[in-house]
Amino acid sequence: MDIAILGGTGAIGQGLALRWALETEYGIIIGSREHSRAVNKAREYEAELDSRGRSRTIDGSENETAAASADVVVLAVPAYHVTETIDAVEHELDDAILISPAVGMTREPTGMRYDPPAVGSVTELVAEASPPDVPVVGAFHNLAAGRLSDLDAELGIDTLLVGENADAKETVATLTQGIEGLRPLDAGPLANAREVEAVTPLLINVARNNERMHDLCVRFT
Amino acid sequence: MDIAILGGTGAIGQGLALRWALETEYGIIIGSREHSRAVNKAREYEAELDSRGRSRTIDGSENETAAASADVVVLAVPAYHVTETIDAVEHELDDAILISPAVGMTREPTGMRYDPPAVGSVTELVAEASPPDVPVVGAFHNLAAGRLSDLDAELGIDTLLVGENADAKETVATLTQGIEGLRPLDAGPLANAREVEAVTPLLINVARNNERMHDLCVRFT
Repeated sequence: MDIAILGGTGAIGQGLALRWALETEYGIIIGSREHSRAVNKAREYEAELDSRGRSRTIDGSENETAAASADVVVLAVPAYHVTETIDAVEHELDDAILISPAVGMTREPTGMRYDPPAVGSVTELVAEASPPDVPVVGAFHNLAAGRLSDLDAELGIDTLLVGENADAKETVATLTQGIEGLRPLDAGPLANAREVEAVTPLLINVARNNERMHDLCVRFT
Repeated sequence: MDIAILGGTGAIGQGLALRWALETEYGIIIGSREHSRAVNKAREYEAELDSRGRSRTIDGSENETAAASADVVVLAVPAYHVTETIDAVEHELDDAILISPAVGMTREPTGMRYDPPAVGSVTELVAEASPPDVPVVGAFHNLAAGRLSDLDAELGIDTLLVGENADAKETVATLTQGIEGLRPLDAGPLANAREVEAVTPLLINVARNNERMHDLCVRFT
């Protein structure tokens, strides 16, 4: 199984790439709008893994090439880039599952506010913008990027999956379980994405208003 | 310190009443629109506590009388009853702190949907409808009522506090800490209530879509 992480040079993409590369045998391809940036980041991740005694090849390429060679494509780009990124790769997604982790947020004086697109959530926007035969699964919305990228940090956290396609969701659950301490939970169909995405600004607000809390994640108990 | 729980005959009110009565020395007054219903429930809670070797008096009365004699008033009524309940008790709230745990939700075929009033959240609606000198603190939005009422159930969960008045929030944090396993966390000002309230439909959706999960609560970690 090969996983392309579009926007894999960003914070959440980095965390997923490093964790999967360290803890699983899935092929990892870093995608970026710039080929050189993807390759440089892939080298950087390889060096980080090497320093932990884990020798692995991580590929890097433009988003289109990365998507074309993958079974699962993670759209790890900011919310305001999802539609243009889908436009760029939509013809390369044959039989691939598309994972959407992006969240729309606005910073206001009082705190972070959930600020979804008109369709209700970024995950639903991704589903609308994608070819109809591409199964979209929302996942990894509420992960603290810094904690995920810090391979010494323990997780013990949950991530919520939304989507209409049960097989695709099952595949994403399996990928998720490859990362130790990251438990996938099913939050139902895509329409339930908005309440999932709204947890991300909440985590930032809680971290900001309490001492000794940072890189917060959530556990359902 | 005396705590009035308006709507204290309902599920979340029952859980708070039983836990505070069992584990703290705060005075507990059950409020209801009907005096007899409040008194009957108070007797029922006393019997439950008695069966656990905890002999306590719990008062019951109409909401107005309950509010008049309390230092802290919990508005444990459904979202669609908050404004009429405030109208009924607003002249009885001298120096009292008002706690708002209600959440607006709609059941849709796909799952529970967060459905706030126009002002953004039920907590903000409560603040708008209350006398300006009454400090409003949002709290206890995401507690599973059945689990709270089951005195054998362990908690190990968090509740998020929102509000503008730091002293009132501190008082509510202290009341919360009186219940073992219930950790108060500050989520900032009232404007942050919407993301807090949206967790409640999310918990229902997660419980519905995963086996062996029910009465879910949340822990920030």
